[in-house]
Amino acid sequence: MRIDILSLFPDMFTGPMNDSIMGKAIEHDKLTVHVTDFRDYTTDKHHKVDDYPFGGGAGMLLQPQPIFDAMADVQERAAADGVDRGRVILMDPAGQRFNQSMAEEFAGEDHLTFLCGHYEGYDERIRSLITDEVSLGDFVLTGGELPAMVMIDATVRLLPGVLGNAESAPGDSFSSGLLEYPQYTRPADFRGMKVPDVLTSGNHQKIDEWRQKEALRRTYLRRPDLIDHSKLTDLQKRLLADVRIEEE
Amino acid sequence: MRIDILSLFPDMFTGPMNDSIMGKAIEHDKLTVHVTDFRDYTTDKHHKVDDYPFGGGAGMLLQPQPIFDAMADVQERAAADGVDRGRVILMDPAGQRFNQSMAEEFAGEDHLTFLCGHYEGYDERIRSLITDEVSLGDFVLTGGELPAMVMIDATVRLLPGVLGNAESAPGDSFSSGLLEYPQYTRPADFRGMKVPDVLTSGNHQKIDEWRQKEALRRTYLRRPDLIDHSKLTDLQKRLLADVRIEEE
Repeated sequence: MRIDILSLFPDMFTGPMNDSIMGKAIEHDKLTVHVTDFRDYTTDKHHKVDDYPFGGGAGMLLQPQPIFDAMADVQERAAADGVDRGRVILMDPAGQRFNQSMAEEFAGEDHLTFLCGHYEGYDERIRSLITDEVSLGDFVLTGGELPAMVMIDATVRLLPGVLGNAESAPGDSFSSGLLEYPQYTRPADFRGMKVPDVLTSGNHQKIDEWRQKEALRRTYLRRPDLIDHSKLTDLQKRLLADVRIEEE
Repeated sequence: MRIDILSLFPDMFTGPMNDSIMGKAIEHDKLTVHVTDFRDYTTDKHHKVDDYPFGGGAGMLLQPQPIFDAMADVQERAAADGVDRGRVILMDPAGQRFNQSMAEEFAGEDHLTFLCGHYEGYDERIRSLITDEVSLGDFVLTGGELPAMVMIDATVRLLPGVLGNAESAPGDSFSSGLLEYPQYTRPADFRGMKVPDVLTSGNHQKIDEWRQKEALRRTYLRRPDLIDHSKLTDLQKRLLADVRIEEE
């Protein structure tokens, strides 16, 4: 996969690119990442990339010219490397909410380009370059860099061969449909707080049942919207009935 | 405000701490940030911080000892600086969904501590240290570092005196309750794409009405759940009725 990032703050990506799964994927030749500072493309002699909004109002807006020209260059370089145009993603609170199935969709692409604004709004015409407007959630951030990193992390960990077995979260939430069951590691007694007996019993059937039940309990208590009754096994239905009685 | 971060990858924070609003808040003495590598607190001679789960299964879990001891030290240092225990936040997909009102709540605190795991799950007993379990959304990430940075960004920009006027997004989404209206800056004609005439008309009443209408249109088309009819003015109700007819 090739990822292009257009940002006015390219240094923000250095740490995460080295230390996160992004760095690992780059090292293992599963990923190339190119960060482009679109300020380098401005034709303004003061290197300005923003201007006041037409019609008045506070704040500044990113102008179309530097972003259009940076995007054209990025796409030309990608094409020269034999990579298609792919998806061009704008972080926008008005966009579609990012979720696991979008991460899976992105992971199936050869080329993703993230356009990150910072502080300012965008000139509306910039949206004509975009294939996907995506929101991370109902909150306001100072820029698109952090949400881009979040989306890249969620996407890149799904690329085949990137996540080692040792690192895969046991029973990933959202892939199983239920929240994770409580987990414990050594010591069995930590400053008086003990691991549930069943987990050290060696009885794997009981352990499995306990885990299913506790995953159902946590999901029932915190995110009942995630429970799809049509996908539950008979055992899970029985365990969920027990949980309901215990929690009432 | 004081922010403590417990992480195995402290270098991930360097770029964002310098280049983002975090850096600016630190520079303006509105914020101090302390990143603590909890691997430094392990009593294991191989500096191990994780171990296999009791009861079997794939993946590794963060052990309680290094995190309990790092947290005790962090809280002791904060207390020595006269800062209270504050909120201790764990990034967890089973947690409460992060949103703007949570950012506002966090911005009212004197001390926030973020506990970031990476790859692995947590030993359940670690939750006893936590005041808030927060989720960024329904997707799986490799670690808590990026969501912590997102939450810190959303929070810190709300601290008084951090965000300059020039940087404040005009008509922030979610604070006004509606999505942003389309915005334009120079040039008025960019490669054949023109700014709507009303915005260059100089008629401020018409401009304001156009903006309210387009904010309503975008919200109606993309996030109708955000429209609270009881909060709309009479003008907005009339504009929304027009939008409905035009879009049908």
